Amino acid sequence: MLRYLTAGESHGKALLAILEGLPSGLKVAKEKIDAELARRQSGYGRGARMRIEKDRVEIISGLHKGFTIASPLGMLIENKDFSIDHMPEVVHPRPGHADLAGALKYGFDDCRSALERASARETAIRVAVGAVCKIFLNEFAISVKSKALAIGGKVTPEAVHKIIDEAREKKDTLGGVFDIAISGVPAGLGSYVQPDRRLNGRLAQAVMSIPGIKALEFGMGFISANKFGSEVHDAIYYSKVKGYYRKTNNAGGIEGGVSNGQDILICAYMKPIATLGKPLNSVGIKTKKAHPASIQRADICAVEAAGVVAEAMCAFVIADCLLEKFGADSLKDIKQAFRAYLKRISQ
Amino acid sequence: MLRYLTAGESHGKALLAILEGLPSGLKVAKEKIDAELARRQSGYGRGARMRIEKDRVEIISGLHKGFTIASPLGMLIENKDFSIDHMPEVVHPRPGHADLAGALKYGFDDCRSALERASARETAIRVAVGAVCKIFLNEFAISVKSKALAIGGKVTPEAVHKIIDEAREKKDTLGGVFDIAISGVPAGLGSYVQPDRRLNGRLAQAVMSIPGIKALEFGMGFISANKFGSEVHDAIYYSKVKGYYRKTNNAGGIEGGVSNGQDILICAYMKPIATLGKPLNSVGIKTKKAHPASIQRADICAVEAAGVVAEAMCAFVIADCLLEKFGADSLKDIKQAFRAYLKRISQ
Amino acid sequence: MLRYLTAGESHGKALLAILEGLPSGLKVAKEKIDAELARRQSGYGRGARMRIEKDRVEIISGLHKGFTIASPLGMLIENKDFSIDHMPEVVHPRPGHADLAGALKYGFDDCRSALERASARETAIRVAVGAVCKIFLNEFAISVKSKALAIGGKVTPEAVHKIIDEAREKKDTLGGVFDIAISGVPAGLGSYVQPDRRLNGRLAQAVMSIPGIKALEFGMGFISANKFGSEVHDAIYYSKVKGYYRKTNNAGGIEGGVSNGQDILICAYMKPIATLGKPLNSVGIKTKKAHPASIQRADICAVEAAGVVAEAMCAFVIADCLLEKFGADSLKDIKQAFRAYLKRISQ
Amino acid sequence: MLRYLTAGESHGKALLAILEGLPSGLKVAKEKIDAELARRQSGYGRGARMRIEKDRVEIISGLHKGFTIASPLGMLIENKDFSIDHMPEVVHPRPGHADLAGALKYGFDDCRSALERASARETAIRVAVGAVCKIFLNEFAISVKSKALAIGGKVTPEAVHKIIDEAREKKDTLGGVFDIAISGVPAGLGSYVQPDRRLNGRLAQAVMSIPGIKALEFGMGFISANKFGSEVHDAIYYSKVKGYYRKTNNAGGIEGGVSNGQDILICAYMKPIATLGKPLNSVGIKTKKAHPASIQRADICAVEAAGVVAEAMCAFVIADCLLEKFGADSLKDIKQAFRAYLKRISQ
Repeated sequence: MLRYLTAGESHGKALLAILEGLPSGLKVAKEKIDAELARRQSGYGRGARMRIEKDRVEIISGLHKGFTIASPLGMLIENKDFSIDHMPEVVHPRPGHADLAGALKYGFDDCRSALERASARETAIRVAVGAVCKIFLNEFAISVKSKALAIGGKVTPEAVHKIIDEAREKKDTLGGVFDIAISGVPAGLGSYVQPDRRLNGRLAQAVMSIPGIKALEFGMGFISANKFGSEVHDAIYYSKVKGYYRKTNNAGGIEGGVSNGQDILICAYMKPIATLGKPLNSVGIKTKKAHPASIQRADICAVEAAGVVAEAMCAFVIADCLLEKFGADSLKDIKQAFRAYLKRISQ
Repeated sequence: MLRYLTAGESHGKALLAILEGLPSGLKVAKEKIDAELARRQSGYGRGARMRIEKDRVEIISGLHKGFTIASPLGMLIENKDFSIDHMPEVVHPRPGHADLAGALKYGFDDCRSALERASARETAIRVAVGAVCKIFLNEFAISVKSKALAIGGKVTPEAVHKIIDEAREKKDTLGGVFDIAISGVPAGLGSYVQPDRRLNGRLAQAVMSIPGIKALEFGMGFISANKFGSEVHDAIYYSKVKGYYRKTNNAGGIEGGVSNGQDILICAYMKPIATLGKPLNSVGIKTKKAHPASIQRADICAVEAAGVVAEAMCAFVIADCLLEKFGADSLKDIKQAFRAYLKRISQ
Repeated sequence: MLRYLTAGESHGKALLAILEGLPSGLKVAKEKIDAELARRQSGYGRGARMRIEKDRVEIISGLHKGFTIASPLGMLIENKDFSIDHMPEVVHPRPGHADLAGALKYGFDDCRSALERASARETAIRVAVGAVCKIFLNEFAISVKSKALAIGGKVTPEAVHKIIDEAREKKDTLGGVFDIAISGVPAGLGSYVQPDRRLNGRLAQAVMSIPGIKALEFGMGFISANKFGSEVHDAIYYSKVKGYYRKTNNAGGIEGGVSNGQDILICAYMKPIATLGKPLNSVGIKTKKAHPASIQRADICAVEAAGVVAEAMCAFVIADCLLEKFGADSLKDIKQAFRAYLKRISQ
Repeated sequence: MLRYLTAGESHGKALLAILEGLPSGLKVAKEKIDAELARRQSGYGRGARMRIEKDRVEIISGLHKGFTIASPLGMLIENKDFSIDHMPEVVHPRPGHADLAGALKYGFDDCRSALERASARETAIRVAVGAVCKIFLNEFAISVKSKALAIGGKVTPEAVHKIIDEAREKKDTLGGVFDIAISGVPAGLGSYVQPDRRLNGRLAQAVMSIPGIKALEFGMGFISANKFGSEVHDAIYYSKVKGYYRKTNNAGGIEGGVSNGQDILICAYMKPIATLGKPLNSVGIKTKKAHPASIQRADICAVEAAGVVAEAMCAFVIADCLLEKFGADSLKDIKQAFRAYLKRISQ
């Protein structure tokens, strides 16, 4: 079983994660994690914070001479902008954020106590966790990739840049659409035997837990609800070379809650960033009087970044399922079990 | 913490569930559970099995004189069609089902060993679990309701009946769209403090774990990805009578992973039933030769039923969150904490 | 991951369990489970209930033609003495039972609502769960055995019978001591990498969760606290035939939270049964007046039975650890991984 | 639900913990945590490492202006002696440690890769976690205290010093006995409704997960196995002033897996430290030849330190149970629920 916890506030000292359950013998290079962190920070439409922070991971624990020793990986990303106790109060909750719901839930009279943790800053450390999971998955030739498909409904680079510039000018924000493709997953991860073990449910939880995601679909997704079964399900074929195969992948790689050996395809829909430069109506949480929402430094659009976070979250889920199926403890042992399984199902 | 496990095969003796973590003092009437079970069995386009089974729950444990005593609720639904060990082998896996992936994963040479558990028959007992959660939520004036919005892309009753009849005639199947509305949830369930505690992630996992669901959205959902932030986020207002309120609910009742006091709105998209009367191409799992997929007794369309299952799954998640927030053990104690909280956040 | 939940009250319809996470391909014979249930019911000093109940398991789900198919095993043991709603109120809580603490916690004014679930009757279904785990472990030549060592401080059969008879005459009760030996466990189950993964901690939780157990020790146990290190730790030897071996087993088979390949040895200490025929002082929970504790039908001594329950609990833990280490899903795959590991560590 | 993970090796950069599930509004002073860390480092018989490390916690996250905001508490303790990648190989596993079992499990040919995490150094960060739990419990007037009762079988200070000096001279080690008393716990924590929810089981797991603990008992413990029930169970009394009370506490504060309102009393037995200055027989893991075990810097005796760790572990369990029973999120809300419950059960 793979587990992790993250910690850290947007303007706290640092972000932290502990990732537990990795086998021994995996080479973990800090550079690979940093590369993922840099990917998360890129994309047109990002805010001033991205110019302040150049995220670099510090691996605190879990390695011996560069290799995992099965002990928990402790990781830390310093916040350059460490100032939490000196930041102004936030008393006009921003619609679309956890500001108000968080303040009510936890009894805050300063929404800062909510937004510091609710901020998407936290996803940086999730990317570090996911980067390690990707390194692990790479040993099994499994890859997880995302791509922004549309921003504010626009698809071509020019149109995307134009609408982001328009949003910036209007002090407005944008969301968009990205997809995730997980390749190399063998048939047999996840299960139908208990509701909480279905792979699509686990992946949906993971992707939906990313700030701003409001919808997602697997494979043909939404559209499949409008079709006949004969137009949707992926007929099964077999050849000596390929084994079982399909000519279509409408299922998005999962049937009955179990990976079927095809690419797992997820498409995620992100709402516009909730912090607007030209703020929406809100209410003072102390005065109860109408007042424009608080303005915080923010991105105009972060769809590409969300895609990188989604890769991380999916990589974690797949790594967890892999360990569940093929055992734990030693990378060599797991690889041996993996190969034996691939051989069995190819016969 | 509320937990449950289910057990049971499609043609096994019975379906079982154990639901653990309910407080004492809740009146549980078998009739209310049976009413939900009957709802799940209804809907135009259901197959022959629904005429064989008239699901009734048997409460095996957990009640004393009709009230919960905090001990686990054991529930059983008998299968009239108990015949698992005498059913024919299934050697031509059906596209869209777990038949092939399940057989590979578990090493079966008879897909029956997979489909018996992967079958949606299992969702009957989930409905029983959810019915009890609904009875619990009802004590807090929280309701969970679903509605079929479209079937095979058709919206009006006449068009829906017509396309289902068409599908039956063509030995084809259909899916559709339903929504779920959860009313009465106070602000403050779920959390942003850790990725796995976000309410939308937990609900997404629950809904996506229902056989056939391929996509889902919260509130304005996927359309919000095409809009400006100013068109999406729900401005915040306040009045003495209503407290904080919104004039829109594009967020679908959740901001930052936390319920915000509005109705939680989810829309789910179901692919067509995977068992076709006019089967798709498949392969013999022993012969490896091309052969039409196996035909099993099945529905043509089960969108309304899936909605009822989704209600159950959501009711479980909300009940779990409620217990997490307001404590456990005694219904009276929990109600007192709930009222104290409502009072606090209304000030 | 192996999981289970149990349900059922002492005088309810039945006891239930769902055991989830077993691989496919395991032959489960009802007779083997019944044999374990019978063992739990034996022993000198048992009460009248044991003459009423002849526990037999009914396997509700999880098997196809006698073999597991990886779907949850549902098991049921009928209570012959089903009468929960017609039993008298219990208003004088028995010292040593959950009667009072349970009534306070859950807000009962009838301790029956507590004792029906708190009763050791519930352990019958744990034995069924454990019996299945034993069948699984047997495939890996791992056995779990218990033996009563002393009852009321007496060791020889004659002295034991005599003191039990004395207790019966005095309307008193007895406890005792039993040990558990788990043989065939390879080095490497459990872990030191996180506090909750240490094998001794997991086994301690399992054994201590059995009603009446008040103390336990591993290997040389409490005496080792009085010795020098040189008298306690088990020197390490190696031979081509045996591999690494020890001449002593003071550690009780676990070092650093990890099994070391020797027998795992646990000794458990059970307090006397809490229901006395000649009751202790108590208080009316409605009247608050002094009154002798309620008398319920009970055993005088159940040490052997507790040993059987402890075997079940330990078998579950070891099976869970085995699946964690060697992967899941198919018995054949797991055996292959197990053998490959044994080969690796023997080199 | 309260959760934590720890990370860190003995000679790594630092020890880390993330503690998740604390409510908002708790004042956490670093000094209180440091005071507990200092307590763990004290005691006669400690080794050279204790002179190198003066453990101080750095709180990385989770506080806003000194108070918890319900977001995860990230804590770090720097290792002065950071040298993991430059330490010598350990190829002669030490009996009593995880050296050999860890190397086999994870496939190491250098036991250092095992002992770095298996080392009791890791317990420092557990003490930090527990210190925060104690601060939380203190708000409810619950305290957790330990006391060393014997070392190497000696009880008086003079005898203890003498035997430790003797052990040092002989290059041998010692263990001992300590008890833990948890005061102020109300009746009603833990439960009998499911095996894994029994409070004694959870505490046993927690205490047994501390390196070196080989036995434990609750209340009268071991001895109760030799007595009649009438000599063991704590008769129940009632007075207007005290409510329900007992004149004895043989149960050690837990009946039927539930706290009964009396002090929870645990006694733990620790084996001697496993690293001997005059090493035991071992085997080269590469050569397979007999060779004395490796010598590492170590304590001669660490019973008092283990007591402090046990306090921490128990504080975590009790805090978790408290949150489960009285709800989460806001310290004020939880206190209100706690007081309402105390009032209810005092009536």
